[in-house]
Order: sequence, then C-alpha cells, then structure tokens
Amino acid sequence: MDKSVAVFRKEHFNAAHRLHNPSWDAATNEKVFGKCNLPHYHGHNYELIVKVTGVPDPETGYVMDMKVLSDIIRDIVLERFDHKNLNEDTVEFKHLNPTAENIAVVIYDLLRPAINTALDLKITLYETPRNFVEYPA
Amino acid sequence: MDKSVAVFRKEHFNAAHRLHNPSWDAATNEKVFGKCNLPHYHGHNYELIVKVTGVPDPETGYVMDMKVLSDIIRDIVLERFDHKNLNEDTVEFKHLNPTAENIAVVIYDLLRPAINTALDLKITLYETPRNFVEYPA
Amino acid sequence: MDKSVAVFRKEHFNAAHRLHNPSWDAATNEKVFGKCNLPHYHGHNYELIVKVTGVPDPETGYVMDMKVLSDIIRDIVLERFDHKNLNEDTVEFKHLNPTAENIAVVIYDLLRPAINTALDLKITLYETPRNFVEYPA
Amino acid sequence: MDKSVAVFRKEHFNAAHRLHNPSWDAATNEKVFGKCNLPHYHGHNYELIVKVTGVPDPETGYVMDMKVLSDIIRDIVLERFDHKNLNEDTVEFKHLNPTAENIAVVIYDLLRPAINTALDLKITLYETPRNFVEYPA
Amino acid sequence: MDKSVAVFRKEHFNAAHRLHNPSWDAATNEKVFGKCNLPHYHGHNYELIVKVTGVPDPETGYVMDMKVLSDIIRDIVLERFDHKNLNEDTVEFKHLNPTAENIAVVIYDLLRPAINTALDLKITLYETPRNFVEYPA
Amino acid sequence: MDKSVAVFRKEHFNAAHRLHNPSWDAATNEKVFGKCNLPHYHGHNYELIVKVTGVPDPETGYVMDMKVLSDIIRDIVLERFDHKNLNEDTVEFKHLNPTAENIAVVIYDLLRPAINTALDLKITLYETPRNFVEYPA
Repeated sequence: MDKSVAVFRKEHFNAAHRLHNPSWDAATNEKVFGKCNLPHYHGHNYELIVKVTGVPDPETGYVMDMKVLSDIIRDIVLERFDHKNLNEDTVEFKHLNPTAENIAVVIYDLLRPAINTALDLKITLYETPRNFVEYPA
Repeated sequence: MDKSVAVFRKEHFNAAHRLHNPSWDAATNEKVFGKCNLPHYHGHNYELIVKVTGVPDPETGYVMDMKVLSDIIRDIVLERFDHKNLNEDTVEFKHLNPTAENIAVVIYDLLRPAINTALDLKITLYETPRNFVEYPA
Repeated sequence: MDKSVAVFRKEHFNAAHRLHNPSWDAATNEKVFGKCNLPHYHGHNYELIVKVTGVPDPETGYVMDMKVLSDIIRDIVLERFDHKNLNEDTVEFKHLNPTAENIAVVIYDLLRPAINTALDLKITLYETPRNFVEYPA
Repeated sequence: MDKSVAVFRKEHFNAAHRLHNPSWDAATNEKVFGKCNLPHYHGHNYELIVKVTGVPDPETGYVMDMKVLSDIIRDIVLERFDHKNLNEDTVEFKHLNPTAENIAVVIYDLLRPAINTALDLKITLYETPRNFVEYPA
Repeated sequence: MDKSVAVFRKEHFNAAHRLHNPSWDAATNEKVFGKCNLPHYHGHNYELIVKVTGVPDPETGYVMDMKVLSDIIRDIVLERFDHKNLNEDTVEFKHLNPTAENIAVVIYDLLRPAINTALDLKITLYETPRNFVEYPA
Repeated sequence: MDKSVAVFRKEHFNAAHRLHNPSWDAATNEKVFGKCNLPHYHGHNYELIVKVTGVPDPETGYVMDMKVLSDIIRDIVLERFDHKNLNEDTVEFKHLNPTAENIAVVIYDLLRPAINTALDLKITLYETPRNFVEYPA
C-alpha cells in the first residue's frame, strides 16, 4: 500500500467582496447574484483548510512541518487577502468574480509554487459554515 | 489538470425513526439493533451535506448557484423528512430500515434527477456528531 | 472575592417527542405548534450541559469530580430519556408538554437531589444547534 | 425559586464594515484600528444569539415561540444588515463606529420594542469564532 | 440601564499535566484521580476564553482593543503554559494540583493585574470539549 | 454504480507526547521540532475519526454496526493511548516519533486486523482543531 499521509492546516481571514459580471447589465447581475451583487460589498470570515499529501520523512515523521506550512499560508494568502476588499484591493480579483470557487482556485495557484512538487495540494474554503468548496475536486 | 471544483451546501432536518427488520422476531431485532429498536421511536437532528462537483461556469464563477441548490434540497428532502417519523410518515422507509446508510442512499436517489447530469453528486449525513455516513463512498 | 468556580459537563441523548396540549382541539394545536405537533413524532439529538458551582476542595482541587458528575447524569437522565419517545415512554412527560423549557426544568428537578446541596446547579439544553434553553435563568 | 427559563435563538448574517473615527486624522485611525481601518472595507460572518428570559406559559410550555422569535430577528435585524455594508448602507452606523460592541447595542435597541416587556433580552454577537461580545453584560 | 458590554477573546494552548496530591499515598491518589494520576502525564488542548466587561469608550466603540487583549493573553498565559508540562515546568503548579479549576484561578490571578481595574474579568477554560470551568463563577 | 457507503465513528483520547529524534543532537532536535521538543512533554486532546467503507448488509442496512466499531476502537486504541504518555508508556512509540502522521499510521495498523477485510479503512486524527492528518491519503 502507498504510505502517503495527508496533513491539513486550518487558517482564516476576513474579507469583503461583491459578485458582479461587468459584461452584464445591472438587471442581469441582480437576477443572477441577488444580495451578493449589492454595490457596497458584504463580507465573510473565510476558513481555509490546506491539505498536503505525501510520504512522511522517516527522520522527522513529518509529511511537512505544519509550522512551515502555516507560515507559507500566512505570507502568501493571509497577507494578501486578510481584512481586504477582494474586488478593490487585490490584483487577483480585479477582473475575476470572487466566488468561493474562484477564490479556492486562486489560492491553489498561489500556494502551488511554494510547496514541494513531490507533495499533492488541495484547498477547502468555507465562505460560511453552510457553504464551502474544494479544489481540486 | 481537471478544473473541477466541488461545492458543498449544509442543511438540517429533525426526524424520528426506529431500526427494525420485520422478517425477524423481536429477540433478534433487539439483539441486533439494541436501543435503536425501541418500539416508540427516538429521533435525531440530521445534518445533511450535499456535494456537487463540476467545472465552474466562466460567466458566473459558479459550479452551481448555492441558493438554487439550497432550494432544491429544501423542496425535495426537507419538505419530505423534516419533523417526520421516517417509519410511519414516509413511503421511502415503509419497507426499508431507516439506518443512516439507507437514508443517505435514498437522499442521493431523490436529488440525482434534480441536479444537472454533468455534475457529480455526493451525500454526507450526520446522524449524531459522532456517527455519520457518506454515499457514494 | 468569592472563591467559587463553576464546572460544566456536557452529555447528549437522542429522543423523539411531539408538542401537544390535550385540552385544545386539533386546529389550535396545529396553529400553535406547527410541524412540532405532527402526530407520529419527530426527534432531536439533545446536547445537555450541567453546570455545578461551588468552592473547590483544597485537597483535590475539584468542585466536584467530573467523572462522578458524568455518572450521575448517565444514571439519572440518559438512562431515562436516551433513545426514548418522551411522550410515550416516560412518566415525566405523560401530562407535560416536552418543550425544551420543560425538559430542562424536569432534568434540573431530577438532578438536584443527587448533587450536594452546597453546590449550585444549572441546566443548558440544546434542542438543535440553533435553539437552546437554560434553567434556572 | 424563580421559575424563569432562558431561551436562545441563533441566526447569522454577513456584512462588510470598516472601523473609523471621522474626528481623528488618518494616522490616529490607522494606529488605533490597524487593519480594521483599511478604506475599502472587510467583512464578517456575524453569528447572532438572542436570549429571551421569562416564565414559561403553562399552556404551551414556551417562554416564547422560537419560530416567532426567529421571524422577528429576520424581519428586524437580518433584513437590515445581511449582505450590507454597515458603514455605507445603514442609517444606524452612518455616524457610529460598527465595532462588535456597538452592533450588539444597536441590535438590542432594535429588538427590545418587539419583545414582550415582561421578558428580559440579551444579545451575543460573534464577529469571528475567537472574538465575541455580549450586551447587556 | 447599565451600558456595560462584555467582550470575549478565545485562545488556546497545549500542555501536559498529572493530578496528584503529594500528601496522600499512591492508593488514595489512584482512587481519587483515576487515569488522571498516571505517573508519566497526559495532556490536553486547552481552549481559553477571557471575558472583559466594561462601558465601551465612546471614541473607539471598544470596551478594550481585542488585539491588545490577545497580546496580553499571549505574553502572560501562552508563553508560560503552551507546550509545557504544568507540573514540571511551571512554578504555579509546583505545589498546586493542575485541575481545570485551579488552572482557571491561576490564569485569573495572572491576568488581573494586566487589565484596567475598571473592567471586570472572567475566565472560561475548556480541558476537553465536554469538561470546562468558569471563574469567578 | 458501486453501492458502497462509508460510515464514520468519532472518538477521542488525551495523551502527552514529545517530538524527538534520538539520533540527532539537542540543537538539531530543537531546531526541527521547536516547542514540540521540550523535554517534559506537552499534550493534546486527540479527536479520532475512523472511516469504514463497504456495501450495506441488506438485512440490517448497516455497513458495520457503529456500536461494534465504537467498542473495537475503545478496546484497541483508547485503552492503549488514553491518558498515557505516548513516548514513555507505549511500546508503539518507544522508537517511533509520535507525530500526528505516525500516530495515524499506527492506529490504522492496530485496527486493520480487527475490521472485516471486505471493508476499507481510513483514519483521520485531529491533534488540534487546526492541525490534522488522514491515512491512507
């Protein structure tokens, strides 16, 4: 059997956002996105779970040092998005709708180069306790 | 890489049930199902998580509108089972033992026709915070 | 300052119930209790928190041994209500509507004689994660 | 002993906000409020717990019908604040800093006239899972 | 009405401990403390909630800056107890049994001098999700 | 479609541990394991989720009786590790570093012979609410 183990680290950040497709008119935006399209933004406490999978190092017993993983997430994700307005303050969502799906893909693409290529990576993002997403699925 | 994202929506319902196999005698039922076989029913707060997987629509950034998914779950699952006695009040469990496993399969079969066939579907059902099931596994 | 400390023990039980006032007609019962009045019962995972307050014993550092408190709750409350139909299977709710409020008062009255009179007692009962009660208030 | 019971109803809403005192200069605002002062807002999933205390009605066994309480919270609080920018979209925080403390007091003042004066009222508001407030204390 | 608001900050630390009264013989210690008396220690993820109560400052809308409160807890409590053996590594529990009750009182006494005397202070400490204590009660 | 269902049972245990590689010098151990290397141990509330996957028995509607699964976990895992010092009191971690990864693999290897070979087995272990692992990945 493959001796891979997955390790998970949970972090959180708070951000404002608004769902909006600039190529649509106002009525279509309101019809599709409802309250999430309101012009002055609303916000969430995003709970982020980063999963890293690989074979534990026999010397340490670690797949990856969770303290290092936590620092990487803080430097790359939290510094960028915490207490920000995703639509206004970030280059990533200047032209990309900040749905939970898109935020998870963006976080994956930001973290992937910082994690050893021998390790698999998966992102789970809670927008609310009742709505969450996973990427890659 | 496949660009699929999974989205999850959590809902809940309360119901009474009793575990019982009518083809067995009372002693066998009590031996196998224990307190869960008591004749006057007991109940649970069922927490239901519905997972839908697919490629996000580039126009909306949604795999599926979570509001639509929530409405489908409410119409098809909660209307049918919430505040009901599963054994007495539902056709689904008239002749099927309402174990968590069977309830999850029934919910999957009820929801599958209402979800776009291009999207995968998975059900997680918590019977208690310590006992839960997933289907398909 | 008073040197009292409160200790809390959390337990849970599952039960079926139905809200119903036998002195009312069916229409009034349905109007007041809605889905909670459905004749075949529904159920809940009740989460019970028992709070006991007093001055810690200087020899043990305990207000009360939590293992002893857990055993008392199991013997007096869980044995009586777990996996039961509150309306049908218990003497306490034969003639008393099993609302969360009434269940909390009944649990208090059952536990009070089993706890040292020098210690205060309070009951918190979660009927669902969003509905709960406390007695005495 | 007083026969009062407290009942609690939990609801949630999402909103954007920014902490800012307009009578201070930018440097003081940034020094005092840090990241919470960023100009384009950030947001939270606010979890709101409303506690109502009184003697249960002997006919219903209810202190207050939780469905009615839930409807009042929805009509008065959630309609006003959910998916809104508290600073921009609400009259309540046009000239009042939307700290968790102030939001809790505002919600109390909004709900108090809608609840029977014989019943006590208390608000708990979670801004994040690690920061929350209670009013009256 | 008193305009006091309570604010709560949640932090956590991990520690090892053992319950033991050195003035008792081994048999008494084992009888009273059971598995908690095992000689090589066991441990917990302690969840700590610090409650501070007072009237919000009209200029900031804060009872107390939660970031400042979090820093105080980190400097005074977490630096001292996190990843430590309470019996072996701390002066506080050299001669005091580290029950949850006693740990809560010790944390209160450590934090009290660091908090404005105009503000009330209360400690809640979770030893496990099912066992927790509050001081002052 | 495969008719497999996964069932999950959650249990917990408390233990002390220390991360240490005896073939390294003290400086390397401290550099790699930080606070987790402190000589007198620290501890955790480990939350353990055991997942068993298979086709439900048509007579019972069970993949596996959760009561039986709970008893197996108690006898094999909790009896061995609960309230223990993993490094000092267990043969499994006498020469194996008790990281979450290694503990999960050890629990898998202990439980595998006790579970029907027709059923798949997976272990999830929470060391803290923010750090957890899964095996097999």
